[in-house]
Amino acid sequence: MPFVNVKITREGATSQQKAELIKGVTDLLVQVLDKNPATTFVVIDEVATEDWGVGGVPVEAFREQT
Amino acid sequence: MPFVNVKITREGATSQQKAELIKGVTDLLVQVLDKNPATTFVVIDEVATEDWGVGGVPVEAFREQT
Amino acid sequence: MPFVNVKITREGATSQQKAELIKGVTDLLVQVLDKNPATTFVVIDEVATEDWGVGGVPVEAFREQT
Amino acid sequence: MPFVNVKITREGATSQQKAELIKGVTDLLVQVLDKNPATTFVVIDEVATEDWGVGGVPVEAFREQT
Amino acid sequence: MPFVNVKITREGATSQQKAELIKGVTDLLVQVLDKNPATTFVVIDEVATEDWGVGGVPVEAFREQT
Amino acid sequence: MPFVNVKITREGATSQQKAELIKGVTDLLVQVLDKNPATTFVVIDEVATEDWGVGGVPVEAFREQT
Repeated sequence: MPFVNVKITREGATSQQKAELIKGVTDLLVQVLDKNPATTFVVIDEVATEDWGVGGVPVEAFREQT
Repeated sequence: MPFVNVKITREGATSQQKAELIKGVTDLLVQVLDKNPATTFVVIDEVATEDWGVGGVPVEAFREQT
Repeated sequence: MPFVNVKITREGATSQQKAELIKGVTDLLVQVLDKNPATTFVVIDEVATEDWGVGGVPVEAFREQT
Repeated sequence: MPFVNVKITREGATSQQKAELIKGVTDLLVQVLDKNPATTFVVIDEVATEDWGVGGVPVEAFREQT
Repeated sequence: MPFVNVKITREGATSQQKAELIKGVTDLLVQVLDKNPATTFVVIDEVATEDWGVGGVPVEAFREQT
Repeated sequence: MPFVNVKITREGATSQQKAELIKGVTDLLVQVLDKNPATTFVVIDEVATEDWGVGGVPVEAFREQT
Protein backbone atom coordinates (compact mmCIF):
# COMPACT_ATOMS: atom_id res chain seq x y z
CA MET A 1 0.00 0.00 0.00
CA PRO A 2 2.39 2.67 -1.17
CA PHE A 3 1.86 6.38 -0.84
CA VAL A 4 3.60 8.61 -3.35
CA ASN A 5 3.72 12.40 -3.19
CA VAL A 6 4.82 14.23 -6.33
CA LYS A 7 5.69 17.90 -5.89
CA ILE A 8 6.08 20.00 -9.04
CA THR A 9 6.08 23.71 -9.75
CA ARG A 10 2.71 25.03 -10.86
CA GLU A 11 3.26 25.67 -14.54
CA GLY A 12 0.21 24.43 -16.32
CA ALA A 13 0.25 20.67 -15.93
CA THR A 14 -3.04 19.46 -17.42
CA SER A 15 -5.51 17.00 -15.95
CA GLN A 16 -4.40 14.58 -18.67
CA GLN A 17 -0.74 14.90 -17.68
CA LYS A 18 -1.61 14.41 -14.03
CA ALA A 19 -3.55 11.27 -14.94
CA GLU A 20 -0.47 10.02 -16.82
CA LEU A 21 1.70 10.63 -13.76
CA ILE A 22 -0.78 8.75 -11.56
CA LYS A 23 -0.91 5.83 -13.99
CA GLY A 24 2.84 5.74 -14.53
CA VAL A 25 3.79 5.80 -10.86
CA THR A 26 1.20 3.15 -10.00
CA ASP A 27 2.29 0.86 -12.84
CA LEU A 28 5.89 1.24 -11.72
CA LEU A 29 5.09 0.11 -8.18
CA VAL A 30 3.18 -2.87 -9.54
CA GLN A 31 6.05 -3.86 -11.83
CA VAL A 32 8.98 -3.32 -9.48
CA LEU A 33 7.50 -4.31 -6.12
CA ASP A 34 4.32 -6.20 -7.03
CA LYS A 35 2.17 -3.69 -5.14
CA ASN A 36 -1.62 -3.76 -5.36
CA PRO A 37 -2.78 -0.75 -7.42
CA ALA A 38 -6.06 -0.56 -5.50
CA THR A 39 -4.11 0.41 -2.39
CA THR A 40 -1.55 2.64 -4.10
CA PHE A 41 -2.17 6.35 -3.57
CA VAL A 42 -0.52 9.12 -5.58
CA VAL A 43 -0.93 12.74 -4.48
CA ILE A 44 0.30 15.57 -6.70
CA ASP A 45 1.14 18.97 -5.19
CA GLU A 46 1.60 21.94 -7.46
CA VAL A 47 3.74 24.63 -5.84
CA ALA A 48 3.75 28.27 -6.93
CA THR A 49 7.13 29.25 -8.39
CA GLU A 50 7.64 31.91 -5.73
CA ASP A 51 7.34 29.17 -3.10
CA TRP A 52 10.00 26.90 -4.61
CA GLY A 53 13.62 27.81 -4.11
CA VAL A 54 16.80 26.40 -5.61
CA GLY A 55 20.32 27.80 -5.54
CA GLY A 56 19.21 30.10 -2.74
CA VAL A 57 16.64 31.98 -4.84
CA PRO A 58 13.06 31.42 -6.06
CA VAL A 59 12.97 29.17 -9.09
CA GLU A 60 12.20 31.91 -11.59
CA ALA A 61 15.23 33.91 -10.51
CA PHE A 62 17.29 30.71 -10.68
CA ARG A 63 16.27 30.10 -14.28
CA GLU A 64 17.26 33.62 -15.28
CA GLN A 65 20.73 32.99 -13.87
CA THR A 66 21.33 29.76 -15.70
CA MET B 1 5.29 17.73 20.59
CA PRO B 2 3.62 15.75 17.87
CA PHE B 3 3.00 16.96 14.34
CA VAL B 4 0.11 15.41 12.45
CA ASN B 5 -0.66 15.98 8.78
CA VAL B 6 -4.09 14.93 7.55
CA LYS B 7 -4.53 14.77 3.78
CA ILE B 8 -8.07 14.45 2.43
CA THR B 9 -9.67 15.05 -0.94
CA ARG B 10 -11.24 18.49 -1.26
CA GLU B 11 -14.93 17.70 -1.14
CA GLY B 12 -16.53 20.28 1.05
CA ALA B 13 -15.22 19.62 4.56
CA THR B 14 -16.53 22.47 6.68
CA SER B 15 -14.63 24.59 9.18
CA GLN B 16 -16.59 22.81 11.88
CA GLN B 17 -15.54 19.38 10.63
CA LYS B 18 -11.93 20.50 10.43
CA ALA B 19 -12.14 21.74 14.01
CA GLU B 20 -13.49 18.32 15.03
CA LEU B 21 -10.57 16.61 13.32
CA ILE B 22 -8.11 18.91 15.08
CA LYS B 23 -9.74 18.28 18.46
CA GLY B 24 -10.05 14.54 17.92
CA VAL B 25 -6.46 13.99 16.84
CA THR B 26 -5.12 16.13 19.67
CA ASP B 27 -7.25 14.38 22.30
CA LEU B 28 -6.06 11.02 20.96
CA LEU B 29 -2.40 11.95 21.38
CA VAL B 30 -3.08 13.15 24.90
CA GLN B 31 -4.91 9.94 25.81
CA VAL B 32 -2.61 7.41 24.18
CA LEU B 33 0.80 9.01 24.63
CA ASP B 34 0.21 11.69 27.28
CA LYS B 35 1.31 14.42 24.88
CA ASN B 36 0.92 18.10 25.72
CA PRO B 37 -1.87 19.58 23.57
CA ALA B 38 -0.22 23.01 23.60
CA THR B 39 2.65 21.58 21.55
CA THR B 40 0.59 19.31 19.32
CA PHE B 41 0.15 20.62 15.78
CA VAL B 42 -2.39 19.31 13.30
CA VAL B 43 -2.24 20.46 9.69
CA ILE B 44 -5.03 19.56 7.25
CA ASP B 45 -4.34 19.49 3.51
CA GLU B 46 -7.26 19.34 1.10
CA VAL B 47 -6.23 17.89 -2.24
CA ALA B 48 -8.18 18.42 -5.48
CA THR B 49 -9.66 15.15 -6.73
CA GLU B 50 -7.71 15.39 -9.98
CA ASP B 51 -4.51 15.45 -7.92
CA TRP B 52 -5.27 12.28 -5.94
CA GLY B 53 -4.83 8.94 -7.64
CA VAL B 54 -5.77 5.44 -6.58
CA GLY B 55 -5.86 2.25 -8.61
CA GLY B 56 -3.79 4.02 -11.25
CA VAL B 57 -6.41 6.67 -12.04
CA PRO B 58 -7.63 9.94 -10.52
CA VAL B 59 -10.01 9.35 -7.65
CA GLU B 60 -13.15 10.35 -9.54
CA ALA B 61 -12.45 7.84 -12.29
CA PHE B 62 -11.71 5.24 -9.61
CA ARG B 63 -15.10 5.79 -8.01
CA GLU B 64 -16.89 5.36 -11.32
CA GLN B 65 -15.19 1.99 -11.74
CA THR B 66 -16.14 0.65 -8.36
CA MET C 1 -9.17 7.92 1.07
CA PRO C 2 -7.35 9.96 3.68
CA PHE C 3 -3.64 9.76 4.39
CA VAL C 4 -2.51 10.73 7.87
CA ASN C 5 1.11 11.11 8.96
CA VAL C 6 1.78 11.25 12.69
CA LYS C 7 5.26 12.41 13.71
CA ILE C 8 6.29 11.89 17.34
CA THR C 9 9.58 11.86 19.15
CA ARG C 10 11.03 8.37 19.61
CA GLU C 11 10.51 7.77 23.30
CA GLY C 12 9.28 4.26 23.66
CA ALA C 13 5.82 4.21 22.11
CA THR C 14 4.75 0.57 22.15
CA SER C 15 3.19 -1.43 19.33
CA GLN C 16 -0.03 -1.38 21.34
CA GLN C 17 0.02 2.41 21.59
CA LYS C 18 0.72 2.73 17.89
CA ALA C 19 -2.23 0.44 17.16
CA GLU C 20 -4.40 2.69 19.34
CA LEU C 21 -3.29 5.74 17.38
CA ILE C 22 -4.07 4.00 14.09
CA LYS C 23 -7.51 2.95 15.33
CA GLY C 24 -8.30 6.33 16.86
CA VAL C 25 -7.33 8.39 13.82
CA THR C 26 -9.22 6.07 11.47
CA ASP C 27 -12.36 6.07 13.62
CA LEU C 28 -12.22 9.86 13.76
CA LEU C 29 -12.16 10.17 9.97
CA VAL C 30 -15.09 7.77 9.70
CA GLN C 31 -17.10 9.70 12.28
CA VAL C 32 -16.35 13.24 11.16
CA LEU C 33 -16.12 12.86 7.39
CA ASP C 34 -17.68 9.47 6.71
CA LYS C 35 -14.46 8.16 5.18
CA ASN C 36 -14.02 4.50 4.28
CA PRO C 37 -11.58 2.92 6.77
CA ALA C 38 -10.37 0.43 4.15
CA THR C 39 -8.84 3.31 2.21
CA THR C 40 -7.61 5.31 5.18
CA PHE C 41 -3.85 5.09 5.70
CA VAL C 42 -2.05 6.16 8.87
CA VAL C 43 1.75 6.32 8.91
CA ILE C 44 3.62 6.92 12.16
CA ASP C 45 7.14 8.37 12.11
CA GLU C 46 9.23 8.25 15.24
CA VAL C 47 11.91 10.94 15.23
CA ALA C 48 15.05 10.80 17.38
CA THR C 49 15.05 13.58 19.97
CA GLU C 50 18.27 15.05 18.56
CA ASP C 51 16.46 15.45 15.22
CA TRP C 52 13.49 17.38 16.64
CA GLY C 53 13.94 21.02 17.51
CA VAL C 54 11.71 23.46 19.32
CA GLY C 55 12.52 26.90 20.69
CA GLY C 56 15.68 26.85 18.58
CA VAL C 57 17.24 23.86 20.34
CA PRO C 58 16.90 20.06 20.25
CA VAL C 59 13.91 18.89 22.25
CA GLU C 60 15.91 17.51 25.17
CA ALA C 61 17.65 20.83 25.69
CA PHE C 62 14.27 22.55 25.41
CA ARG C 63 12.82 20.41 28.19
CA GLU C 64 15.73 21.20 30.49
CA GLN C 65 15.02 24.90 30.02
CA THR C 66 11.34 24.73 30.80
CA MET D 1 12.67 20.40 -10.40
CA PRO D 2 10.27 17.83 -9.06
CA PHE D 3 10.51 16.21 -5.67
CA VAL D 4 8.95 12.79 -5.26
CA ASN D 5 8.55 10.93 -1.98
CA VAL D 6 7.71 7.24 -2.18
CA LYS D 7 6.56 5.63 1.06
CA ILE D 8 6.41 1.82 1.17
CA THR D 9 6.24 -0.72 3.94
CA ARG D 10 9.64 -2.14 4.89
CA GLU D 11 9.47 -5.62 3.47
CA GLY D 12 12.79 -6.31 1.84
CA ALA D 13 12.96 -3.99 -1.16
CA THR D 14 16.47 -4.42 -2.55
CA SER D 15 18.90 -1.71 -3.61
CA GLN D 16 18.28 -2.81 -7.19
CA GLN D 17 14.52 -2.39 -6.82
CA LYS D 18 14.98 1.02 -5.26
CA ALA D 19 17.20 2.03 -8.17
CA GLU D 20 14.46 0.88 -10.57
CA LEU D 21 11.91 3.02 -8.71
CA ILE D 22 14.22 6.04 -8.88
CA LYS D 23 14.83 5.53 -12.61
CA GLY D 24 11.18 4.87 -13.40
CA VAL D 25 9.81 7.88 -11.56
CA THR D 26 12.45 10.17 -13.06
CA ASP D 27 11.85 8.89 -16.61
CA LEU D 28 8.13 9.41 -16.12
CA LEU D 29 8.58 13.05 -15.15
CA VAL D 30 10.82 13.60 -18.16
CA GLN D 31 8.32 11.98 -20.53
CA VAL D 32 5.11 13.51 -19.19
CA LEU D 33 6.25 16.96 -18.12
CA ASP D 34 9.63 17.40 -19.83
CA LYS D 35 11.36 17.82 -16.48
CA ASN D 36 15.15 17.90 -16.19
CA PRO D 37 16.35 14.67 -14.56
CA ALA D 38 19.36 16.43 -13.03
CA THR D 39 17.00 18.42 -10.83
CA THR D 40 14.52 15.63 -10.11
CA PHE D 41 14.82 14.17 -6.62
CA VAL D 42 13.25 10.91 -5.50
CA VAL D 43 13.30 9.96 -1.82
CA ILE D 44 12.15 6.51 -0.70
CA ASP D 45 10.92 5.96 2.86
CA GLU D 46 10.53 2.43 4.15
CA VAL D 47 8.05 2.27 7.01
CA ALA D 48 7.92 -0.57 9.54
CA THR D 49 4.69 -2.55 9.21
CA GLU D 50 3.69 -1.71 12.79
CA ASP D 51 3.87 1.98 11.86
CA TRP D 52 1.56 1.71 8.84
CA GLY D 53 -2.16 1.42 9.44
CA VAL D 54 -5.03 0.67 7.11
CA GLY D 55 -8.62 -0.20 7.90
CA GLY D 56 -8.01 1.00 11.44
CA VAL D 57 -5.33 -1.58 12.26
CA PRO D 58 -1.61 -2.10 11.58
CA VAL D 59 -1.02 -3.47 8.11
CA GLU D 60 -0.14 -6.99 9.24
CA ALA D 61 -3.40 -7.32 11.13
CA PHE D 62 -5.21 -5.92 8.09
CA ARG D 63 -3.74 -8.58 5.85
CA GLU D 64 -4.82 -11.35 8.20
CA GLN D 65 -8.40 -10.06 7.99
CA THR D 66 -8.57 -9.94 4.22
CA MET E 1 21.13 17.74 -2.06
CA PRO E 2 18.88 18.76 0.78
CA PHE E 3 15.15 19.23 0.55
CA VAL E 4 13.54 21.61 3.03
CA ASN E 5 9.81 22.09 3.48
CA VAL E 6 8.70 25.15 5.45
CA LYS E 7 5.06 25.18 6.55
CA ILE E 8 3.66 28.45 7.86
CA THR E 9 0.17 29.79 8.39
CA ARG E 10 -1.09 31.92 5.49
CA GLU E 11 -0.96 35.38 6.94
CA GLY E 12 0.44 37.64 4.28
CA ALA E 13 4.06 36.57 3.86
CA THR E 14 5.37 38.59 0.90
CA SER E 15 7.36 37.34 -2.06
CA GLN E 16 10.32 39.22 -0.61
CA GLN E 17 9.99 37.45 2.74
CA LYS E 18 9.72 34.11 1.01
CA ALA E 19 12.87 34.88 -0.95
CA GLU E 20 14.62 35.69 2.34
CA LEU E 21 13.52 32.35 3.79
CA ILE E 22 14.81 30.52 0.70
CA LYS E 23 18.14 32.33 0.85
CA GLY E 24 18.53 31.92 4.61
CA VAL E 25 17.79 28.20 4.67
CA THR E 26 20.08 27.55 1.72
CA ASP E 27 22.94 29.57 3.20
CA LEU E 28 22.53 27.70 6.47
CA LEU E 29 22.90 24.31 4.77
CA VAL E 30 25.98 25.53 2.94
CA GLN E 31 27.56 26.84 6.14
CA VAL E 32 26.72 23.98 8.49
CA LEU E 33 26.95 20.96 6.18
CA ASP E 34 28.82 22.28 3.12
CA LYS E 35 25.88 21.45 0.87
CA ASN E 36 25.77 22.58 -2.76
CA PRO E 37 23.17 25.37 -3.12
CA ALA E 38 22.43 24.36 -6.72
CA THR E 39 20.98 21.10 -5.45
CA THR E 40 19.26 22.51 -2.36
CA PHE E 41 15.49 22.82 -2.72
CA VAL E 42 13.27 24.82 -0.39
CA VAL E 43 9.50 24.52 -0.69
CA ILE E 44 7.22 26.86 1.29
CA ASP E 45 3.65 25.82 2.08
CA GLU E 46 1.21 28.40 3.34
CA VAL E 47 -1.62 26.81 5.30
CA ALA E 48 -4.98 28.48 5.92
CA THR E 49 -5.46 29.23 9.62
CA GLU E 50 -8.57 27.04 9.77
CA ASP E 51 -6.42 24.13 8.60
CA TRP E 52 -3.76 24.51 11.31
CA GLY E 53 -4.55 23.30 14.79
CA VAL E 54 -2.72 23.71 18.07
CA GLY E 55 -3.90 23.01 21.59
CA GLY E 56 -6.79 21.05 20.10
CA VAL E 57 -8.34 24.01 18.29
CA PRO E 58 -7.76 25.95 15.06
CA VAL E 59 -4.95 28.45 15.44
CA GLU E 60 -7.18 31.53 15.55
CA ALA E 61 -9.19 30.11 18.43
CA PHE E 62 -5.92 29.20 20.14
CA ARG E 63 -4.67 32.76 19.91
CA GLU E 64 -7.86 34.11 21.44
CA GLN E 65 -7.35 31.80 24.42
CA THR E 66 -3.77 32.80 25.09
CA MET F 1 3.88 28.20 14.60
CA PRO F 2 5.99 27.05 11.71
CA PHE F 3 6.93 23.47 10.99
CA VAL F 4 10.11 22.86 9.05
CA ASN F 5 11.27 19.50 7.74
CA VAL F 6 14.88 19.23 6.61
CA LYS F 7 15.77 16.14 4.59
CA ILE F 8 19.46 15.39 4.04
CA THR F 9 21.40 12.34 2.99
CA ARG F 10 22.77 10.34 5.92
CA GLU F 11 26.45 11.10 5.76
CA GLY F 12 27.61 11.73 9.27
CA ALA F 13 25.94 14.95 10.35
CA THR F 14 26.82 15.35 14.02
CA SER F 15 24.50 16.25 16.88
CA GLN F 16 26.25 19.60 17.00
CA GLN F 17 25.58 20.26 13.32
CA LYS F 18 21.95 19.27 13.75
CA ALA F 19 21.65 21.67 16.66
CA GLU F 20 23.10 24.42 14.45
CA LEU F 21 20.51 23.67 11.78
CA ILE F 22 17.71 23.81 14.34
CA LYS F 23 18.98 27.10 15.73
CA GLY F 24 19.60 28.64 12.33
CA VAL F 25 16.20 27.76 10.88
CA THR F 26 14.40 28.96 13.99
CA ASP F 27 16.32 32.25 14.12
CA LEU F 28 15.52 32.80 10.44
CA LEU F 29 11.78 32.44 11.01
CA VAL F 30 11.97 34.83 13.93
CA GLN F 31 13.88 37.40 11.89
CA VAL F 32 11.96 37.20 8.62
CA LEU F 33 8.42 36.52 9.83
CA ASP F 34 8.51 37.40 13.53
CA LYS F 35 7.52 33.86 14.48
CA ASN F 36 7.58 32.68 18.09
CA PRO F 37 10.49 30.25 18.55
CA ALA F 38 8.62 28.36 21.29
CA THR F 39 6.11 27.20 18.67
CA THR F 40 8.58 26.63 15.85
CA PHE F 41 9.33 22.96 15.20
CA VAL F 42 12.23 21.70 13.09
CA VAL F 43 12.43 18.01 12.19
CA ILE F 44 15.53 16.61 10.49
CA ASP F 45 15.30 13.42 8.42
CA GLU F 46 18.48 11.65 7.41
CA VAL F 47 17.95 9.51 4.32
CA ALA F 48 20.23 6.61 3.34
CA THR F 49 22.06 7.36 0.09
CA GLU F 50 20.49 4.35 -1.63
CA ASP F 51 17.07 5.86 -0.88
CA TRP F 52 17.80 9.25 -2.46
CA GLY F 53 17.77 9.53 -6.21
CA VAL F 54 18.81 12.34 -8.51
CA GLY F 55 19.34 12.30 -12.27
CA GLY F 56 17.47 9.00 -12.37
CA VAL F 57 20.00 7.10 -10.22
CA PRO F 58 20.82 6.74 -6.51
CA VAL F 59 22.89 9.65 -5.28
CA GLU F 60 26.16 7.72 -5.04
CA ALA F 61 25.94 6.66 -8.67
CA PHE F 62 25.07 10.26 -9.58
CA ARG F 63 28.21 11.56 -7.89
CA GLU F 64 30.39 9.09 -9.76
CA GLN F 65 28.99 10.40 -13.05
CA THR F 66 29.59 14.05 -12.34
